[in-house]
Amino acid sequence: MTTTVKIKGMSCNHCVMAVSKALEQIEDLNDVQVDLSNGSATLHHDGPIDMGLVKDQIEKAGYEVD
Amino acid sequence: MTTTVKIKGMSCNHCVMAVSKALEQIEDLNDVQVDLSNGSATLHHDGPIDMGLVKDQIEKAGYEVD
Repeated sequence: MTTTVKIKGMSCNHCVMAVSKALEQIEDLNDVQVDLSNGSATLHHDGPIDMGLVKDQIEKAGYEVD
Repeated sequence: MTTTVKIKGMSCNHCVMAVSKALEQIEDLNDVQVDLSNGSATLHHDGPIDMGLVKDQIEKAGYEVD
């Protein structure tokens, strides 16, 4: 399954790396792709994911879910 | 002595950190202050500094001297 999240505030590849690292810590995700030009993260997962946790990790990294 | 360099391309605090680290590797500098809002680095030094090296370090970090 694939879930896409819009993220506000990413301005450069350092931001992409910070968000990627934050999301990679979520165990239920198989893969994460963060896109700077779209301002989005694409999450690949088999089962359900906790979107509250996704939001928390993005905010902890210093960004906002759009 | 104080030298100020204008830098292009810094968009966030990660960029500031990358430029700061790159400049802190120059031995002739006593202190470096990088300012995101101005897009500048202020270099504190006692003797002369090699501005070619300053430019090189900034470019290696992925930014441009303005």
